[in-house]
Amino acid sequence: MRKRCAQEFVISLLVLVFLNQIEGNGLSKEWSIIDEDLVNSTGITNDQPTYLWPLPKKRSNGNVTVTVDPNLGLVIQGIGHNSSLVREAFARYKNIILTHHVKFGNRNSEQNIEYSISKLIITVSTADETLQLGIDESYSLYVPVGDEHSIVQGAHLEAKTVYGALRGLETFSQLCSFNFMTKNVEISNAPWFIQDKPRFAFRGLLLDTSRHYQPVEIIKQIIDSMSYAKLNVFHWHIVDEESFPLEIPSFPGLWKGSYTGWERYTFDDAHDIVEFAKSRGINVMAEIDVPGHAESWGVGYPDLWPSADCREPLDVSKNFTFEVIASILADFRKIFPFKLFHLGGDEVHTDCWTNTPKVKEWLDEHNMTARDAYQYFVLRAQKLAINLGWTPVNWEETFNAFSEKLNPKTIIHNWLDSGVCPRAVGKGFKCIFSNQGVWYLDHLDVPWEKVYSSDPLEGIDDSSQQKLVIGGEVCMWGETADASDVQQTIWPRAAAAAERLWSSTDDTSSDLDTVLPRLEYFRCLLNQRGIPAAPVRNELARRPPSGFGSCYMQ
Amino acid sequence: MRKRCAQEFVISLLVLVFLNQIEGNGLSKEWSIIDEDLVNSTGITNDQPTYLWPLPKKRSNGNVTVTVDPNLGLVIQGIGHNSSLVREAFARYKNIILTHHVKFGNRNSEQNIEYSISKLIITVSTADETLQLGIDESYSLYVPVGDEHSIVQGAHLEAKTVYGALRGLETFSQLCSFNFMTKNVEISNAPWFIQDKPRFAFRGLLLDTSRHYQPVEIIKQIIDSMSYAKLNVFHWHIVDEESFPLEIPSFPGLWKGSYTGWERYTFDDAHDIVEFAKSRGINVMAEIDVPGHAESWGVGYPDLWPSADCREPLDVSKNFTFEVIASILADFRKIFPFKLFHLGGDEVHTDCWTNTPKVKEWLDEHNMTARDAYQYFVLRAQKLAINLGWTPVNWEETFNAFSEKLNPKTIIHNWLDSGVCPRAVGKGFKCIFSNQGVWYLDHLDVPWEKVYSSDPLEGIDDSSQQKLVIGGEVCMWGETADASDVQQTIWPRAAAAAERLWSSTDDTSSDLDTVLPRLEYFRCLLNQRGIPAAPVRNELARRPPSGFGSCYMQ
Repeated sequence: MRKRCAQEFVISLLVLVFLNQIEGNGLSKEWSIIDEDLVNSTGITNDQPTYLWPLPKKRSNGNVTVTVDPNLGLVIQGIGHNSSLVREAFARYKNIILTHHVKFGNRNSEQNIEYSISKLIITVSTADETLQLGIDESYSLYVPVGDEHSIVQGAHLEAKTVYGALRGLETFSQLCSFNFMTKNVEISNAPWFIQDKPRFAFRGLLLDTSRHYQPVEIIKQIIDSMSYAKLNVFHWHIVDEESFPLEIPSFPGLWKGSYTGWERYTFDDAHDIVEFAKSRGINVMAEIDVPGHAESWGVGYPDLWPSADCREPLDVSKNFTFEVIASILADFRKIFPFKLFHLGGDEVHTDCWTNTPKVKEWLDEHNMTARDAYQYFVLRAQKLAINLGWTPVNWEETFNAFSEKLNPKTIIHNWLDSGVCPRAVGKGFKCIFSNQGVWYLDHLDVPWEKVYSSDPLEGIDDSSQQKLVIGGEVCMWGETADASDVQQTIWPRAAAAAERLWSSTDDTSSDLDTVLPRLEYFRCLLNQRGIPAAPVRNELARRPPSGFGSCYMQ
Repeated sequence: MRKRCAQEFVISLLVLVFLNQIEGNGLSKEWSIIDEDLVNSTGITNDQPTYLWPLPKKRSNGNVTVTVDPNLGLVIQGIGHNSSLVREAFARYKNIILTHHVKFGNRNSEQNIEYSISKLIITVSTADETLQLGIDESYSLYVPVGDEHSIVQGAHLEAKTVYGALRGLETFSQLCSFNFMTKNVEISNAPWFIQDKPRFAFRGLLLDTSRHYQPVEIIKQIIDSMSYAKLNVFHWHIVDEESFPLEIPSFPGLWKGSYTGWERYTFDDAHDIVEFAKSRGINVMAEIDVPGHAESWGVGYPDLWPSADCREPLDVSKNFTFEVIASILADFRKIFPFKLFHLGGDEVHTDCWTNTPKVKEWLDEHNMTARDAYQYFVLRAQKLAINLGWTPVNWEETFNAFSEKLNPKTIIHNWLDSGVCPRAVGKGFKCIFSNQGVWYLDHLDVPWEKVYSSDPLEGIDDSSQQKLVIGGEVCMWGETADASDVQQTIWPRAAAAAERLWSSTDDTSSDLDTVLPRLEYFRCLLNQRGIPAAPVRNELARRPPSGFGSCYMQ
């Protein structure tokens, strides 16, 4: 025991020295105890297959198999060493790594065995745990072979932020696999040296809880699974025309639009979901889709409908409509810290306005066409959001209809095929890619290859314009996805998009035949973690396996 | 605080008095602090709808809504008061009951609110936690209205065993529902007085982990969900011809028959699964299906095959075959405490024996037909199991082929349509009902009504013969069920069988229209607990919802 304590002391000293040398945003070699040159001198080859998903940006590895101590210890260092978020994440990942049991669960009997990796030393160089778009998610991971050169039997994970540490923990957990012959958790092809950071800042999944209510527990399962693929934005399409499940404190009648009294979220449930997501490094982007997708709002407040016969879009002619929106936004500001807020704005069928006499009258009074009123509505809603400090996101119809009027801060959310992101960034707007032909998960006939082969930057060559594409998002619309089938509709295809959004195209644009076994491995990994990801090879999504066989070949 | 302590003291005294009066197996009124007469004098009516699944045997209720303290306390009393199993179960159920969040998660701010039910007082009258077929699962549950007659603000749950307490906890959790208007967990229609016990001792679900490997995490999810429906036997069809995923310490080559090196269970994983199941009051009945469904055994030991071209049934002519079976059974005896062991015995196609020269030679030497050899094999395997203290279970073909030779202890497991249980019990055998036309879950075209309307006692009128039917089991064969779709194939239809096996037929044979909303409620309850149970109303099992809508009406 004394020896180990001495080693920890040396490490602490080293860290103190290194921490004094931290500079810039990235991980610079100078301050790192992970010495790339040292790694490269130990006979590393890059020709081993790796089963990491998504692929890290920069990696090198050797050909030694090392063992991981089932009593793997955790050392957190650096300014962020007090992070309970990292500590709890480590506990979760340790559980995942140690799924399989050995010797009647009595690992103590093995205490005399020498393991190569007896601890994971995590260095976090800031104590700021603010989660936001664009925070530093980079990390470096070094898994040594544990020869006489190493001063500790530990793997090293270094990150600027706790969220970088979470990403690194995920990668570390994927390096570990249980060897059923040796009964050890092992890391093959060590030493590993990984330097990783995401390609895009915004890597989203939309969940629609209006067409079907998704229980809180299911939402948490989805958020958990997102973290396994390093997705980082849970776009919560909370309400739509079919139902309004969420409590709005300032207008408590709104959730009368829920399907039943049981299919609801309290305001605090939403807060709890945001906190849960944060603990996984995932932002929650809330949406209220106005004015088009909002019929359910009027169940509690029929004044929001143009008339009882014509209930959508929300009545543009009443101040009350905007009073309700302003109140929702003010309520949301208390629980949704993410700086992006989605205001919808798609599929606004204005006939209801022009066909309702009192609304038509109002339009005439204000000298507005229905199209003007659509613009007026969207811009007024944007203003309300901006006044509360939000960056508005709108579906692309708003850009297609009146791009020159949109607040320049607006982030355009593509969904109608490709093409809008190139146009939007050409006009200086930021853009999110969700081309329905490839990234709408409810399109069951889109196979993983098509999801994988799409790119948010398609059609954009100018590098300054490329920077305006903040990322992309796969969309899980809920018409035929309830608690019973949502996860197998999401996975494994969402993983294909997740790698596109995280990994460098140099690595991932190559032969799909080489990608397939890695994706199958990831799908089976999701299964092992209790996530019902569907077989990869089915032509249609979420179909059962066609017959008996291995998870890795279906 | 003093007042509460005084109340607990009174309760303890009462329990001491009552415990001195325990007699017999059931819950007799004399020893119970739950006084049925008192309950009946408080204006109870039985005409309220109840949403319990499966229906308790005896229940009465009133029309008062009571609130449950979010800081619900636990008091365990009686001889079994030290049970960590009950304590952990209470913690799980408390989590379930308190899924929804109120006031930014700060329930402390509500500490001045008076709740009707501030604690659950569980009395367990034995410290013996042995789980076995036929243990006492009965319980009584009393939820008072908390008027001046009640000496404590607690609900009372009384059970002979910890497993009765688990069943009662499940019922208590189903009585609780979150009221989104009052923001309280409430119990409607109190006071509740429930006296419950199962109709059948054996209420099983078969899971096939050979056609598809099911990860340990998925198996645990299934076991958890079984406990919600009060099923109590996890029939683990571990191996079959397609794969052999489990480690057998005495013959370590056997799991070479797994699909891949990753799709395996360590011997200790199996032990862990048994322990996990026990904590949910669920027995694990292991199966090795010999000699017919065993091709995968020979991957590691080709000698078990009659020949390389003809690999099934196991070679009846070699002592080695029985040596392997004996060793598996001896290994299993260490980790499977359930007294029933399933030896399979179905679908034995003996052509392989008669067509393999050396086996044919052996048959001739021993003056056996292929049919004789089948009988010889089954009986020899039975003997091995019986010598280890097991009660053998065999699929019905063994009974159909040579009932008069079977060990009289044999439990006949029906699967080929109906009819065998009446014949088996007529000959004094015990029987398990799994008629494939109604209780095979892989038959996707069997709707819940058909599952529900079947009965293990069909065709058996004699009450002494009825007693030989120990119960029934739904079977989840794995050809098209892997981790991605197994739960929605099991649920909600397994729940229909679970109620048939638990509840009295007086209650449940009535109009299916009155059952449907209760089953839909249970399906949505499973969803809320994170179990992807499929819509109830689909004609084919595990299909997605046909369109948007409420969980409770799909």
